[in-house]
Amino acid sequence: MPVNAKIRVNFYDTDAMAVVHHANYIRWFEIGRVEYLRSIGITLNDLMEDGFVFPITEISAKFVSPGYYDDDLIIETTATELTKVKMAFNYKVYREKDGKLLVTGHSQNVYTSRETGKITRLTEKYHKKLEEAIKKERDENDV
Amino acid sequence: MPVNAKIRVNFYDTDAMAVVHHANYIRWFEIGRVEYLRSIGITLNDLMEDGFVFPITEISAKFVSPGYYDDDLIIETTATELTKVKMAFNYKVYREKDGKLLVTGHSQNVYTSRETGKITRLTEKYHKKLEEAIKKERDENDV
Amino acid sequence: MPVNAKIRVNFYDTDAMAVVHHANYIRWFEIGRVEYLRSIGITLNDLMEDGFVFPITEISAKFVSPGYYDDDLIIETTATELTKVKMAFNYKVYREKDGKLLVTGHSQNVYTSRETGKITRLTEKYHKKLEEAIKKERDENDV
Amino acid sequence: MPVNAKIRVNFYDTDAMAVVHHANYIRWFEIGRVEYLRSIGITLNDLMEDGFVFPITEISAKFVSPGYYDDDLIIETTATELTKVKMAFNYKVYREKDGKLLVTGHSQNVYTSRETGKITRLTEKYHKKLEEAIKKERDENDV
Repeated sequence: MPVNAKIRVNFYDTDAMAVVHHANYIRWFEIGRVEYLRSIGITLNDLMEDGFVFPITEISAKFVSPGYYDDDLIIETTATELTKVKMAFNYKVYREKDGKLLVTGHSQNVYTSRETGKITRLTEKYHKKLEEAIKKERDENDV
Repeated sequence: MPVNAKIRVNFYDTDAMAVVHHANYIRWFEIGRVEYLRSIGITLNDLMEDGFVFPITEISAKFVSPGYYDDDLIIETTATELTKVKMAFNYKVYREKDGKLLVTGHSQNVYTSRETGKITRLTEKYHKKLEEAIKKERDENDV
Repeated sequence: MPVNAKIRVNFYDTDAMAVVHHANYIRWFEIGRVEYLRSIGITLNDLMEDGFVFPITEISAKFVSPGYYDDDLIIETTATELTKVKMAFNYKVYREKDGKLLVTGHSQNVYTSRETGKITRLTEKYHKKLEEAIKKERDENDV
Repeated sequence: MPVNAKIRVNFYDTDAMAVVHHANYIRWFEIGRVEYLRSIGITLNDLMEDGFVFPITEISAKFVSPGYYDDDLIIETTATELTKVKMAFNYKVYREKDGKLLVTGHSQNVYTSRETGKITRLTEKYHKKLEEAIKKERDENDV
């Protein structure tokens, strides 16, 4: 089930072409996956307190149509992989008022230990929530 | 022939994981392609004065190893496609002091008319320079 | 009457000290004054369509206490001057959950013509709304 | 003796008014003071390794004239106070090609302990360098 986050384009998000600078969408994908994780009961602060960090390993985006100052945008986030060692998400960014698709994207990140900096496996506490969420995504897509 | 640009990681480029936030590399790819174009005699200001804008249509990146505050980074940019309607570049970001590869990436952008916002073709003045550059890239890779 | 805007601190807003990088508050002041103007019926898009731009001429801030990742912040904006040629605002940024004051600030901007780049006077349409708003601020402070 | 740092305005530094967004100068002041400190033999990495962080407590800026895409800017930084507990700097940002003054500013920061988060005093190792530098600044201004 996709999770929606909403943001408004600020003046400082625009560039001299009078559109949203494309790198901002990469930042906003982060807002999307944070809200996805929150919706299944996981926060980055909890992960960090338990010694996990979550560096992005891959990102991609297609920019379909420009966003403008003061647009309200919907960041729709769907999990595509949620395991003990990595997470992957798909993103769709829409303009709220006309439903226009502006950007699609994908990200992948791994879990690493804050202490050692090495790739690590999530504890069961987190893994259980992620497993349930990805199962739900797959069941919905099977219907 | 790859063109190198150099940047230093600022404190404001880091995040609470004490590494460079990944979205900054997407911004730095821009520095790379701007310097590539400058090296073949094309500036964005000239393009804009002639009525062209150059929205990014696709971006992707793999984050191999983290960058840290005060690192000097080399952004190595190679053109992979330079036509009348679009440009595509590959990027490699290295840390200067140890030569470590931090990030690889790719971008594609099209040309649009500032006035109409529609996709347009570059004039011969620019096309000639781009054609020569991409020919050179291919000749070098053939060797 | 102060106008409140609400933002959530993103991971990309933090720096390697694990707190909000101070320059972000300067960006967020913009969110504050945009919402203030919207509350009195003025949008930046309307101003730009009517040929006005609104460069910031002065900014100042005191950073009282750090903001952290995932904090919900309240940006409280009060107008201190709203004339045909300039606007000035005071800002207070609080953390919502404990009411702690994080930052105070002030900004001033002038109106310039998009066409000439020179300082200009707002038309009556805007001036009337601004005059009413500042009168209200003063009446409230007099009580 | 002022220390100069040089930066080039990127496309992503501009906003829809086709000028540098003002909040970027606040970030660039950081580049200025980092280079000032480096010039007297102090790096932020050394400070952090020794357990010091250096939150900004005050910032102010006057925006005199707009910066544009691809401008080469000089950030001229002068120390005004360098004690065991705080540092203060003045900034002037010039465009290199015409020497035009774009922005002036001031910042102040304190030293805090990474461990306790509380204000702390620098060790003699750093204090000695700072004392020499500020003495030099004063001697030069007295001439």
